[in-house]
Amino acid sequence: MPQCTTLLHAKKILTQDPRRSLLEDASLAISKGRIVAIGPRCELSGVWQAADERDLGNVLILPGLINAHTHAAMTLLRGFADDLPLLDWLNQKIFPREAALTPELVELFSLLGFAEMLATGTTSCLDMYLFEKAVFAAAKRAGIRLSAGEVVFAFASAACANWQEALAITEELAESTACESRLEVMVSPHSVYTTNPQILTSCLDLAQKLDLPLHLHLSESPQEVAQCQKMHGQSPIAYCASLGLLTQPVALAHVVVCSEHDLSLLKAARQATILHCPGSNMKLASGAARIPQMQQNGLFTALGTDGAASNNQLNMFLEMNRAALLHKLIANDPETLPAGTVLDMATLGGARALQKPDLGSLEVGKWADLTALDLSAPNLVPCYAPISHLVYAATGHEVVLTMVEGEILYDHGRFTRFDYEALCREIAKVTVTS
Amino acid sequence: MPQCTTLLHAKKILTQDPRRSLLEDASLAISKGRIVAIGPRCELSGVWQAADERDLGNVLILPGLINAHTHAAMTLLRGFADDLPLLDWLNQKIFPREAALTPELVELFSLLGFAEMLATGTTSCLDMYLFEKAVFAAAKRAGIRLSAGEVVFAFASAACANWQEALAITEELAESTACESRLEVMVSPHSVYTTNPQILTSCLDLAQKLDLPLHLHLSESPQEVAQCQKMHGQSPIAYCASLGLLTQPVALAHVVVCSEHDLSLLKAARQATILHCPGSNMKLASGAARIPQMQQNGLFTALGTDGAASNNQLNMFLEMNRAALLHKLIANDPETLPAGTVLDMATLGGARALQKPDLGSLEVGKWADLTALDLSAPNLVPCYAPISHLVYAATGHEVVLTMVEGEILYDHGRFTRFDYEALCREIAKVTVTS
Repeated sequence: MPQCTTLLHAKKILTQDPRRSLLEDASLAISKGRIVAIGPRCELSGVWQAADERDLGNVLILPGLINAHTHAAMTLLRGFADDLPLLDWLNQKIFPREAALTPELVELFSLLGFAEMLATGTTSCLDMYLFEKAVFAAAKRAGIRLSAGEVVFAFASAACANWQEALAITEELAESTACESRLEVMVSPHSVYTTNPQILTSCLDLAQKLDLPLHLHLSESPQEVAQCQKMHGQSPIAYCASLGLLTQPVALAHVVVCSEHDLSLLKAARQATILHCPGSNMKLASGAARIPQMQQNGLFTALGTDGAASNNQLNMFLEMNRAALLHKLIANDPETLPAGTVLDMATLGGARALQKPDLGSLEVGKWADLTALDLSAPNLVPCYAPISHLVYAATGHEVVLTMVEGEILYDHGRFTRFDYEALCREIAKVTVTS
Repeated sequence: MPQCTTLLHAKKILTQDPRRSLLEDASLAISKGRIVAIGPRCELSGVWQAADERDLGNVLILPGLINAHTHAAMTLLRGFADDLPLLDWLNQKIFPREAALTPELVELFSLLGFAEMLATGTTSCLDMYLFEKAVFAAAKRAGIRLSAGEVVFAFASAACANWQEALAITEELAESTACESRLEVMVSPHSVYTTNPQILTSCLDLAQKLDLPLHLHLSESPQEVAQCQKMHGQSPIAYCASLGLLTQPVALAHVVVCSEHDLSLLKAARQATILHCPGSNMKLASGAARIPQMQQNGLFTALGTDGAASNNQLNMFLEMNRAALLHKLIANDPETLPAGTVLDMATLGGARALQKPDLGSLEVGKWADLTALDLSAPNLVPCYAPISHLVYAATGHEVVLTMVEGEILYDHGRFTRFDYEALCREIAKVTVTS
C-alpha cells in the first residue's frame, strides 16, 4: 500500500492540467510537498495510506492562485488616500509615508498582506518593495511562496542609500534563500522613469550572473511613455529592448500602453510575461492594457493585484473578475477573455511569470499548492460550471483551506503558522488612523 | 428611563445623514422597527433600556445597502451560460430555460438570491421578473424589503398569457401588499423593445391610478437604440418621454446609451432615477453608462446588480467597487466617482429609486435597516477611512449582522427566518447541473 503524507477528498477538483480536467468526487495524495496521485476518489481511497486524510466535503479544489505583481507591505497604506490624481497621491500621500518605513513595519504589514492572500486562495506572490529582507521574513512566518527582490531606484530610499546597495541586498537575498524551496529572488529595478541606463544594465548583468529573472514596472501610463520618448527618443518597451532587458526572463508589470511596434518587440523576445493589474489600472485611471491582443500574439500573461494602496485588495478572485469584465467592455465583445482564459492567467500564467514550471496546475510531480472553496456558499449555488464560478461568482471568501507544498496554512478561518489576533494588536499599536 | 426593543453598540457607525457623520464608539436604539436614538455610546448606554442589548464589538454599522435593479430568481441561471454574444446567450440559453419556469422555482431561487443579499449587507431590493407573487412570498420568508412588479411583455410568457394578465397581477399584488411595510409594488413594463405604445400607456395609467412608481429597462445597448430609432423615429428615452412615462416616478435600469438630448429630457422630467448596473453592462459588453455626467446634471442615480445570470453575483459591495473603478478608467480621471458618491448611490440613491424616503441613512425616525461589518477581517485592516473600505476594500463577506426594521435576519453566518441547508437540499433536487 503506497504511503503519502496527506490525502484530500473533495466533491470537485479543477486540475488546470493540459486537458483542463475537472474531476468529480476526487482525491489528491501528497508526499514531501508534491502531488503523488490525483484522480477519482474510488481509485485513490483505500489505496493510498495517509498520515492525514481529510474529506473536505462539498468543496472545489483548485491550484493556488498566483498574485504576479504586488507590494504586500502596502497594506500599511490601504485606504490611506484614494480618489486623488496620481501625482498628488504619490507625492503628497504615499511617498512621505514610505520615507518613514522601517523593516519592522514592512514585516508586520507584509504578514497582514499574506494573511489576506492565504485567506483568499493565493499561494504564491511576486513582490517588489523596500526592505525586502523583511518581506522574506514575513513570508517565512506565513508559509506563503514568495518571489521578490529589493526595489532598485536611482535615488536614495528609506532602505538604501543608493542603487548599488539595493543590488547588493538582492545578491545577499539570492544567497540566503538558495536552499528555501518556497523563496526565490528576482532582480527588481523599479521602472524606466526611476532608474537610468547604467542601473538597468547593472540589473541585467546581475540577473545573468545569478541566473535570476527580472521584475519591473513598464509602460504603466501615457505620462511615462511621453517622458521616455522625450528623454530616450523611444517608448519604454523599445528602450528596455535596446538595453537587452528583454533577452532575460522578465516579468513586466502593467504594460498599459503598448503600440504595435512594442507588441512586436515583446513577441520577438519570447522571454517576457506581462503582469496585468486591472484593478490598479482602473483605480488610478492609467488605462486598459491590451491583454487580448497580447494573448493573440502569443505573449505570456499573468494577473496581479498591485499594492493595497491602489486596489485596495490583495484578492485574486476579484482581480480575475475585473480582468474578465473590463476586457469585454473595452473590446465591445462579451466573448473576450472568457473565464477559462482568465483562470489560466491566475494559475499557469503566474507560474510562467515566476519561472516555476512546477506550479499552476494540480498534476503528479507538481508542488501541492492549492486552495479549496466551499460550494455551499449562497453565491456559488447552483454550480453548473466551476470555472465560471471562480471568475464570475466567487469573492475569495468562500476559501476554507489553503496549502503550500502540502502544508495547511489556512484552515476554516484560522492561520496555522501565526496568531492573527496578535498581529492585529501589533498593527493597532503602530497605526495612526485618525 | 426610555424603553427600546434593541440597543446596538459598535466601534463605528456610518450614518449617511446629511452631514455624513461617522460616529466612533457609538450606539443605536431601535423601537417598533425604527431608529429612536443614535449617538455616542456614553450618551445612550445606561439611558436606553432595551429588551435586547448587543455589543457588536469591532464592527462598522452602516445603512443596509439597496440593490436597485435585480431579478433575484435568476440565481437559477448563475453560471449556466457565460462568455457568449448577447443574442446567443438570450435565445439559446436564457429564454428556453425561462420558458420552463414555475412559481415554485421562482420562489426557491428568489430565496437563494435573498440569502446572498442579506449575507452581503443588502436589506432592500428592486426586482422585476415572472411569477412575481412567488418573489414576494420568498421575500416574506427571508424578511428582506422588496419593491417589485410582475414583468409586462407584449408576448406570452411562462407566467402570463398576455400583458393584460401581467397588469392584473400587478394590481392584485398592490392590494395584497397594502398592509405590508416591507413590500411595495412597482408597475414593471420590461422595456421599450419588448412592449408597444399601448402597453406602456396602460402601464402609466395603472401607475397613476394606484399611485405606484414605474420600473423598466431603458436604453441598455446601442442595438436597442438603433431599433427604436427605426421603429419610432426617436431614441428610447425620447420615446418614453413622448408617451408621458417620465412624468411619473420611474426607475430606469441601465441607461447605457444617453445622448445630450436624452440627458436634457431626463433632467427636465425630475422624476427618474437611473439604476446603474456596471457589472452586468461590462459582462454583456453593453457599454459604460454616463453616470458622472448624469450626476453633474442633477439626476438621481442608484446601483443594482442585475440578475445573477449576467453578473454573476448579487453583491452590492462588489457593485460599488465596479462603479468606482469603471468610471475612473472611462473618464481617465482618478477623482471620478469617489467612494462617498458611490456609497450614496447604494444607500440614499436606492431609497430614492424605491420612493422610500425613510430608508438610506441611519437617522432618528427612519427604518432600522442596517448591516454590520467585521473590521478585523484581513482586508479591512488598518482602517483609516471607513467609506474607502466599503467601496474599495470590502467584499461583502465581512458582514456579520443584517437587520430589516430592527429584526435580525442574518447573524454571523446564520439566517434567522429560514433553514439555509434545507433550501440548498431543495435546490439540489430541482437543478440539473451536468
